Amino acid sequence: MQVVRALTELRRTVEEWRRAGARIGFVPTMGALHEGHLALVRLARARADRVVVSIYVNPTQFAPHEDFARYPRDEAGDLAKLRALAVDLAYLPAHEDMYAPDHASWVMVEGPSEGLCSLTRPHFFRGVATVVAKLFHRVRPHFAVFGEKDFQQLRVVERMVRDLDMDVEVVPHPVVREADGLALSSRNVYLSPDQRRVAPALYRTLVETARLLADGRPAAPELAAATDRLRAAGFDRVDYLELRESATLRPLERIGPAVRGRLLAAAWLGGTRLIDNVPVPPDAPGAG
Amino acid sequence: MQVVRALTELRRTVEEWRRAGARIGFVPTMGALHEGHLALVRLARARADRVVVSIYVNPTQFAPHEDFARYPRDEAGDLAKLRALAVDLAYLPAHEDMYAPDHASWVMVEGPSEGLCSLTRPHFFRGVATVVAKLFHRVRPHFAVFGEKDFQQLRVVERMVRDLDMDVEVVPHPVVREADGLALSSRNVYLSPDQRRVAPALYRTLVETARLLADGRPAAPELAAATDRLRAAGFDRVDYLELRESATLRPLERIGPAVRGRLLAAAWLGGTRLIDNVPVPPDAPGAG
Repeated sequence: MQVVRALTELRRTVEEWRRAGARIGFVPTMGALHEGHLALVRLARARADRVVVSIYVNPTQFAPHEDFARYPRDEAGDLAKLRALAVDLAYLPAHEDMYAPDHASWVMVEGPSEGLCSLTRPHFFRGVATVVAKLFHRVRPHFAVFGEKDFQQLRVVERMVRDLDMDVEVVPHPVVREADGLALSSRNVYLSPDQRRVAPALYRTLVETARLLADGRPAAPELAAATDRLRAAGFDRVDYLELRESATLRPLERIGPAVRGRLLAAAWLGGTRLIDNVPVPPDAPGAG
Repeated sequence: MQVVRALTELRRTVEEWRRAGARIGFVPTMGALHEGHLALVRLARARADRVVVSIYVNPTQFAPHEDFARYPRDEAGDLAKLRALAVDLAYLPAHEDMYAPDHASWVMVEGPSEGLCSLTRPHFFRGVATVVAKLFHRVRPHFAVFGEKDFQQLRVVERMVRDLDMDVEVVPHPVVREADGLALSSRNVYLSPDQRRVAPALYRTLVETARLLADGRPAAPELAAATDRLRAAGFDRVDYLELRESATLRPLERIGPAVRGRLLAAAWLGGTRLIDNVPVPPDAPGAG
């Protein structure tokens, strides 16, 4: 596995691969790799001739009060995991090489970025879209894999690619979960043993609520009741718990005929914010 | 010359050229081609194996009250001019194929876009940066030529390319002028004979003022006097007349040692808005 830090070396390698006709798959990550990431890498490995994984904790998607400084980092462990999956190239750009001191250009995606995580993280998707655009321009993959765990992010990236005519296929991967249903996340390491015992209630509540909403009843009372249940289970705060149309993320008051929905939530256990989402109806294809 | 309207055909052609190792030059235009555009095309022709020129009047860079509907259009005349210059491919996308009804993604460039044309056209550079990003992703040129006539636009595009890591070289071309100094513009056709006689005062005033400012004296009083002279010459309104640093477009109070400046102006003759700019000192390399 090539471990590349310099953009010139990355561009040279990718250009050689492209000239040789190789299909390049890409998995952008912020490191602290867990089984969720590794599932994305395996999917890329199965579909590509060459697999590139980037590791970069992107500061522009964190607000000043958020956990950028303490975000888990484990470069040696990450590289060992990627080697074991026969990744061709790990790209680890230095921060000075990603953002100039007078960086001034941003990709803003309206539509799917509105509400949900933007309610409490208003600059998050601007940071995500911008760094993904930069990485796409650097890596020039034929396709890139994104997890449905970050479902709103997936929709934002898909919309950016469509609207700006980026020649990259966005490949989604279902949410990877622990045996008890908790979605895998690099932030799960923040959880105390007590919080860890409460955490699976998020997924369980989403699935229960998705089943109830599947018959087309009004969503508002069920969402309010589900929010109460999350608090009763031990969550300290619920940022949102909403029913959206799956494709566009426009808000839905109920599931209509032939409408695919998505139920999305963010909730806090102490200082740790967990997000998760499920399809509505819950057994729809592509269920996470 | 291939005249291409479909994106699939464009992508297929460019991909073939790239695989054959051809260097691709690109000139994005809004049509109504004059000698200014043709100079950009000649420069591309001299430096590229394959030359692509796009013709697309981009609605997202016009405000509702501006001249999108009456902007001059002459497809047959434009294509004849491009054929005469041995352009390889003219790309004329249909509007429905450029922006989806739920288009939601924008490239925003702060820094060089601030002030000047943004004072009266706040959405202009968002529209320009977005359509140029889209066209770069569609055409995938090795380089693209932009005229210094739209100097702020040139700096915005350069910054976007740098900040978002687009693998495109931005090649500037000096302003092309009539014998009396008027910068060529598609909007010059709006001018009445009387207005046309007044119009060269814009360039003349810029050059005179640039000479005065070259010695480092405070700019403000000279800019005020120059604005008065434009009004006395017959201009109805001056949107701005400002001294900026050439590379960054940050405002300058005076020219310092080893500082390259640019003097930029926008002024109205009746319903027609003219823009122009000159280097400070006026005989600096790259003088327009």
